[in-house]
Amino acid sequence: MAKKAVFYHAGCSVCVEAEQNVAEALDRSRFDLEIVHLGEQKNRVDEAAAAGVKSVPALVLDGLPFHINFGAGLDALK
Amino acid sequence: MAKKAVFYHAGCSVCVEAEQNVAEALDRSRFDLEIVHLGEQKNRVDEAAAAGVKSVPALVLDGLPFHINFGAGLDALK
Repeated sequence: MAKKAVFYHAGCSVCVEAEQNVAEALDRSRFDLEIVHLGEQKNRVDEAAAAGVKSVPALVLDGLPFHINFGAGLDALK
Repeated sequence: MAKKAVFYHAGCSVCVEAEQNVAEALDRSRFDLEIVHLGEQKNRVDEAAAAGVKSVPALVLDGLPFHINFGAGLDALK
């Protein structure tokens, strides 16, 4: 069964680069990838924070948070 | 043709977690993945720096550097 991968971003240039490269490089046969724009879906900021996300862009793989470079802190999106 | 992916690390716990999750999640049919331990291969620190790597763990995808969380600064590995 595919694991869950969630890519959180805020539309920033650092985010776009990470999405187009790291998120796009995932093996989609093993991961169900969901892209979440936290600037447009502010109701999901708490969910990201609960997963340990402190900044975007971030990739949560099977529940574990991985921050990729740095675009913006999560606090700036609340 | 597969693109080149290089995962640079230094054996730290943050590095191991990133390797076992992010690097392992890559689509290997599209990326040739090389794992480089900069603590053991100090002669490759300059190569990582030239690719824009400033800390480990980092993943260089097709020439673009992506820092994943933070384990150690590159300067500490020279």
